[in-house]
Amino acid sequence: MVLINDNYLRLPESYLFSDIKKKVTAFKASHPEAKIISLGIGDVTRPIAPVIIEALHSAVDEMGHPETFRGYGPEQGYSFLQEKIVENDFKARGVELDTDEVFISDGAKSDIGNIGDILSVKNKIAVTDPVYPVYVDTNVMGGRAGIMEKDGQHWSDIIYIPCTSENNFVPDLPAQRPDVIYLCYPNNPTGTTLLKEELEKWVDYALENDSLILFDAAYEAFIHDENIPHSIYEIPHAKRVAIEFRSFSKTAGFTGLRCGYTVVPKSLRISDESGKRVEVNKLWNRRQTTKFNGTSYIVQRAAEAIYSPEGKKQIQESIEYYMRNARLLKNCLQNIGLQLYGGDNAPYIWVKTPNRLSSWKFFDRLLNECHIVGTPGIGFGPSGEGYFRLTAFGRYEDTVEAISRIQNWKL
Amino acid sequence: MVLINDNYLRLPESYLFSDIKKKVTAFKASHPEAKIISLGIGDVTRPIAPVIIEALHSAVDEMGHPETFRGYGPEQGYSFLQEKIVENDFKARGVELDTDEVFISDGAKSDIGNIGDILSVKNKIAVTDPVYPVYVDTNVMGGRAGIMEKDGQHWSDIIYIPCTSENNFVPDLPAQRPDVIYLCYPNNPTGTTLLKEELEKWVDYALENDSLILFDAAYEAFIHDENIPHSIYEIPHAKRVAIEFRSFSKTAGFTGLRCGYTVVPKSLRISDESGKRVEVNKLWNRRQTTKFNGTSYIVQRAAEAIYSPEGKKQIQESIEYYMRNARLLKNCLQNIGLQLYGGDNAPYIWVKTPNRLSSWKFFDRLLNECHIVGTPGIGFGPSGEGYFRLTAFGRYEDTVEAISRIQNWKL
Repeated sequence: MVLINDNYLRLPESYLFSDIKKKVTAFKASHPEAKIISLGIGDVTRPIAPVIIEALHSAVDEMGHPETFRGYGPEQGYSFLQEKIVENDFKARGVELDTDEVFISDGAKSDIGNIGDILSVKNKIAVTDPVYPVYVDTNVMGGRAGIMEKDGQHWSDIIYIPCTSENNFVPDLPAQRPDVIYLCYPNNPTGTTLLKEELEKWVDYALENDSLILFDAAYEAFIHDENIPHSIYEIPHAKRVAIEFRSFSKTAGFTGLRCGYTVVPKSLRISDESGKRVEVNKLWNRRQTTKFNGTSYIVQRAAEAIYSPEGKKQIQESIEYYMRNARLLKNCLQNIGLQLYGGDNAPYIWVKTPNRLSSWKFFDRLLNECHIVGTPGIGFGPSGEGYFRLTAFGRYEDTVEAISRIQNWKL
Repeated sequence: MVLINDNYLRLPESYLFSDIKKKVTAFKASHPEAKIISLGIGDVTRPIAPVIIEALHSAVDEMGHPETFRGYGPEQGYSFLQEKIVENDFKARGVELDTDEVFISDGAKSDIGNIGDILSVKNKIAVTDPVYPVYVDTNVMGGRAGIMEKDGQHWSDIIYIPCTSENNFVPDLPAQRPDVIYLCYPNNPTGTTLLKEELEKWVDYALENDSLILFDAAYEAFIHDENIPHSIYEIPHAKRVAIEFRSFSKTAGFTGLRCGYTVVPKSLRISDESGKRVEVNKLWNRRQTTKFNGTSYIVQRAAEAIYSPEGKKQIQESIEYYMRNARLLKNCLQNIGLQLYGGDNAPYIWVKTPNRLSSWKFFDRLLNECHIVGTPGIGFGPSGEGYFRLTAFGRYEDTVEAISRIQNWKL
């Protein structure tokens, strides 16, 4: 009898965004005249920058001629892009990487989802809480999460590290030692960041405890402050304990084009069952060459264009466009007396709901009274209860309109 | 102590293509004047068809304007493409599918590699032999292959079903019952096909034995003969036992663009540990929504263009271009007295080496005496020994030149 992977059955249906949709649909039906503004999902609204569009057209033309046509590319990505990444994203910040430590992919979500392939099912997982649900869900699928506790919110085998206003969203080192630690900074959903010394504490912990850090830096491009590391490899010896995931989705609006990359340093070695140390770079290379066939050539050319002087300028403009939204939103929310976090070096604003409102209650009131959609914090994990996520990725005009509604809001 | 997935260590380094490369490099060094022709790798050489190039440009333009920009798409693919697939690839052949049974991806290799995610590690795997190495390697990684036998060619837990000239490359039903059966038709590497009644035998076997067929139809577009099924779903009740993988790589030259799709019928149900039947479509949907973020929008628009009247005409021209190569190669190889298979409904020609030459010996002689590179059959599995793969994917001029060398070859 052929059998499924039973771990999949443990995973409850994900209702967050479908529940939001249902509520919005119901509201629309009863208020057909209302103009609803969505500051909920983490998708971008700005078009792809002109210099990237040019690069795409030019790569498309190459594919139409026999002399310049490209078939299968390297599964690890083209060196023209790997070199630009090494030079601009790392060397410019004092981090030395070899091009074969950089694996181009169709996006960070795929890599974050697939990284578990090369890791033992026995590893104990830790996540900060609230958290990007993919970290938890993929470990449920992989058989590392245990069972859902009676509270319906915690998995028995996962270590949750709460990040709330009580610890100013700086995660404490865990009481119980994890094998694998997911860190995401700038953070989704809280929009908060770690200072260099705060991240250093985690790298030191991983070095001392033989733990692996999976560092998600998808929102790195939104960092303005100088003392916030863009890459975990800015921390000494981090190459020995960390894999870093990067995305062009938020940096350059590639959510629909699909490109990201993962750094697996050659000095990162972890143990096999016998205790022998194994080079993780080789394992990931084997995974990618066996189960992946490279990222679309034209999209890799598009990503390359981000690193041209004109490209850098144009994507910076988009980032500033979103960060202006963030500032406007922050000011407005503060003015009506809300306590909030993030939004300075990240496109997310994490609002503490007033008067102990539940995050769903806050959602309902914001929708009903301001016709604005956001995301209830509880959707990101138990410590998200009592919080609410708003994003800066909307159109400027919509954000301004949202603010004009919020500023008169009687909460 | 964080641990790797030890199954990865069982996998020997894949030396096939690197060994070929070494031999070619050595030959070039000692024969700098020789013009080497490669009929080895399975990559295409024809550029992308004009109507597809047009669709790409138009989709790129959409991404450059705020009104037409597209961010995250559905993880399962856009309905505009799903609908074209359902209509043209299936309904036109009498197969009814719903659009939500079709999952668009960045290529068949990814899906074939990832399908094991949703299946138990306890399943017993069967492959035809010789075979596309990804089927075996991904099961080694997943812990389903056991250990490598002393012969260095067979995995202890995998059932090998030999396909050789003795059974005219029609696989016999296995003596031992497998849970999962990989079938690839038209076949890579042998270029052979199964008639409807031959494939029916396998579907009936799977129905009777509660086995799952993973059907790889990447080369479907090369089928000319009427009695050869293009899809396994042309066989009655196959939807209850089979997942089908499709690729635009060979159909339309998308090896560098990256797009394919996987069909998971909703009537396909397999058991969990308790014996309860589970809808596989839902599991794959959960896998894709959690570990994948959709295929590039512009590439999906390119794939859509394949199904336009002009698109169909243009990709048919490319397929005929390659099949002309196949015919020329076949005639020439037959004329010099070689026994060969495939090449009628597939872009691969499977040559039986003469005088019991090993497949590597044949490789050496073809390289040294004709300056032509092919692929030794042993690289595809133990039953590939004594065979050799040539592909029709070369340029016409190169194929003609190769033929002029082969026809005077004294084997």
